[in-house]
Amino acid sequence: MPSDVRPPDGGPGTLGELGEFGLIARVAARLGAPPPPVGPGDDAAVVAAPDGALLATTDLLVEGVHFRTDWSTGHDVGCKAAAQNLADVTAMGGRPAALLVGLVAPAATPVAWLDGLADGLRDEAARGGCPVVGGDTVAGPVLMVSVTALGHPGPRPVLRSGARPGDAVVLLGSLGTSAAGLALLAGGVPAGLDAGIAARLLAAHRRPRPDYAAGPLLAAAGATALCDVSDGLVGDLGHLARAGGVAVVLDGMAALADAPWLADVAAAAHALGGGAAAAAQLVAAWVLAGGEEHSLVGAVPPAALPVVVAAGGRVLGRVAAATSSPGAPGVTVGPTALWSAADAAAAVRRPGWDHFA
Amino acid sequence: MPSDVRPPDGGPGTLGELGEFGLIARVAARLGAPPPPVGPGDDAAVVAAPDGALLATTDLLVEGVHFRTDWSTGHDVGCKAAAQNLADVTAMGGRPAALLVGLVAPAATPVAWLDGLADGLRDEAARGGCPVVGGDTVAGPVLMVSVTALGHPGPRPVLRSGARPGDAVVLLGSLGTSAAGLALLAGGVPAGLDAGIAARLLAAHRRPRPDYAAGPLLAAAGATALCDVSDGLVGDLGHLARAGGVAVVLDGMAALADAPWLADVAAAAHALGGGAAAAAQLVAAWVLAGGEEHSLVGAVPPAALPVVVAAGGRVLGRVAAATSSPGAPGVTVGPTALWSAADAAAAVRRPGWDHFA
Repeated sequence: MPSDVRPPDGGPGTLGELGEFGLIARVAARLGAPPPPVGPGDDAAVVAAPDGALLATTDLLVEGVHFRTDWSTGHDVGCKAAAQNLADVTAMGGRPAALLVGLVAPAATPVAWLDGLADGLRDEAARGGCPVVGGDTVAGPVLMVSVTALGHPGPRPVLRSGARPGDAVVLLGSLGTSAAGLALLAGGVPAGLDAGIAARLLAAHRRPRPDYAAGPLLAAAGATALCDVSDGLVGDLGHLARAGGVAVVLDGMAALADAPWLADVAAAAHALGGGAAAAAQLVAAWVLAGGEEHSLVGAVPPAALPVVVAAGGRVLGRVAAATSSPGAPGVTVGPTALWSAADAAAAVRRPGWDHFA
Repeated sequence: MPSDVRPPDGGPGTLGELGEFGLIARVAARLGAPPPPVGPGDDAAVVAAPDGALLATTDLLVEGVHFRTDWSTGHDVGCKAAAQNLADVTAMGGRPAALLVGLVAPAATPVAWLDGLADGLRDEAARGGCPVVGGDTVAGPVLMVSVTALGHPGPRPVLRSGARPGDAVVLLGSLGTSAAGLALLAGGVPAGLDAGIAARLLAAHRRPRPDYAAGPLLAAAGATALCDVSDGLVGDLGHLARAGGVAVVLDGMAALADAPWLADVAAAAHALGGGAAAAAQLVAAWVLAGGEEHSLVGAVPPAALPVVVAAGGRVLGRVAAATSSPGAPGVTVGPTALWSAADAAAAVRRPGWDHFA
């Protein structure tokens, strides 16, 4: 965080100077007028549920774990906090209805950072078509943002557990760009990497932009199971395989070959040096196990494929019956021109990550 | 937190040993089966909204700010985190529908503490008549619990802004018991204080038990404005006065004289020593400005008073037209047999507290 936090207008520079009620008023002003009938400051917001039900999901972002203030602006963090929750709504086939936000912040937090956070939450919520309807702010030793997203379900919520053998496994969105961007932040952008590519990958990590139309589209097409890529492709499809009692066979990854984002990912892997073999390992790890991407993967009946492909979706593989052997992997990945079977196996062995280990 | 965290069964003693997915499975098991159609592990929960709308509110509790692990068990913190959010639902005249919980915890957190937290959240949610439907767990430097409560609104949400001159100001529940309990935790229980009284006050701070029927009851009786006492009676009624553009005149505080909880509060104040004058100051501060009580205060038309009194409510004062003088207090408090006008004025000057100042 910048050390000189004095704003040019002479207003409060830190949260401690602004105070709790000053912060609430300032954030409420930036978030804009809430929907009637309830404004900020009441005990609870009222969220319309025209379908007779609401989707609800909650997530936490902690400074030093999920973001760094020297890598991401407050606006970045606000956008990302909103995006990862709204992606969960779309992963149920739903549309965003409302966000609630909790903020823990040290008294020394620059007000400008908090302004950015509020703006980012508002901007990404607006991109998803929903307002921020409530919140809470308290003091604490590190910055933490909790976001709860509410959503309007479609005619039926699309769960993780519904995939059936014979379904196609499809992807709407990118893979590995957030992980590649994180690697550039951690290791520095190599001199040989095109500046435009670097900027796209850094932005993908700092401000993922989920396609909020993708979930309702796949749900309407008859998707049997959906989830967003938050733990990594193989990790998230593993959840889907276990929940549905099926196996996922990713034997169509060659379908990604012409994806423009894959060219970005491959360029970054090569620019980091180490030769072709090392680059292939990086690409496999980023694409197969990179988290925080918030693209949508799911299982759809083959009859739905024309709709999915027309919407830009790619077929990555298929759902098969689970094998009866204990310990059999829920997800298997074939080799492609981009990585070897050994690279894929290594990436699959580290799906997702454990925050507490 | 206890230093010996090894459980007798030889299972994982700390969160770092248990791991993230172990924690999620363990917490899900303690919370019991979620309502259909969505179980834990899916992207979002589905909450029924039979009235076509849901109330939504969120709060954060941070270790060292809102609780201390040497003062409160995990079960206490879970109960309190649930209670303070569900109290916000009842303060809109609503009934609890669902809780979502976010947990930030260091890897060294004893699993037994987390088990207690989950049990407390479940137990208080059950007391409010609702399930825990979703959550998130992440690592962080300090324990933090974020809770989002959803609620079914009554025929109309009761806002803070509806109070009208001529309404009566009523209280359902106690005042000052949480603040008195906090003082006993901070300063130690004085030798002269009855053990039963001390236990009640300590429990009031550790595990407030809101009356979740109170909000719907007052709403049905025609309440024009409601809020729960979280920042202190004068602070919360000040929010109500400002939101409604009215003044609150607490000229009926003598109605509390025979409240059993007031006897507890007065006994604690006297047992802490310093003489009668110091005790009166403490009672005034605790009753008028003590937070985290989660009783319900509101404005009701005089015609509703028989219903309120029959339900155990007490009339504390009345709503008046706002005076036009700038800086006029939104809330004025008369003297009682328990405290002087000067004690009341001192307590009113410090309503609530600012987390960041």
